[in-house]
Amino acid sequence: MSIQHTVVFRLAHPAASAEERDFLMTGHSALTSIPGVAEFTIRRQVSGKSDLTHQFSMVFADQNAYDAYNVHPAHTAFVAERWIPEVVEFQEYDFVE
Amino acid sequence: MSIQHTVVFRLAHPAASAEERDFLMTGHSALTSIPGVAEFTIRRQVSGKSDLTHQFSMVFADQNAYDAYNVHPAHTAFVAERWIPEVVEFQEYDFVE
Repeated sequence: MSIQHTVVFRLAHPAASAEERDFLMTGHSALTSIPGVAEFTIRRQVSGKSDLTHQFSMVFADQNAYDAYNVHPAHTAFVAERWIPEVVEFQEYDFVE
Repeated sequence: MSIQHTVVFRLAHPAASAEERDFLMTGHSALTSIPGVAEFTIRRQVSGKSDLTHQFSMVFADQNAYDAYNVHPAHTAFVAERWIPEVVEFQEYDFVE
């Protein structure tokens, strides 16, 4: 059963800044390099009912692919080097049919 | 520009109960009856990092369609009669490209 893994987040950087752009581009390239990551998207969160501003979303074919992603060095490096220092607030959600 | 409107929520009802099933079926039928609601889905939220358990998602072609949905009697009646009494916790997010 496929799993849509999502995280909604807010960066420390100003909207439309070079730092924001670099974070999003690096996230895209790091995470899409990982086997099993499909349908990767970056979108803006625009509801005034949340102060989070972006979403990363990806689809895994099954739990094994998700588990492999979680421990993949490209994922753990991105989390340590970029996510933790630059993301102020976030919430993960995973969706299944 | 199309807008994906989502709400992640948790019901007062036990998982897999008749009350849960009735809420989801009524939500589906009420909300999909509203003009402009496309790609309506109901999914389960399974990440242990959130205690919300379901998601409603729909796509509007533009802000006008979204605004019309918000004030449509089938929407406001569902919110008043079912959502408020039966939903314990929720968070809305809207996504755009």
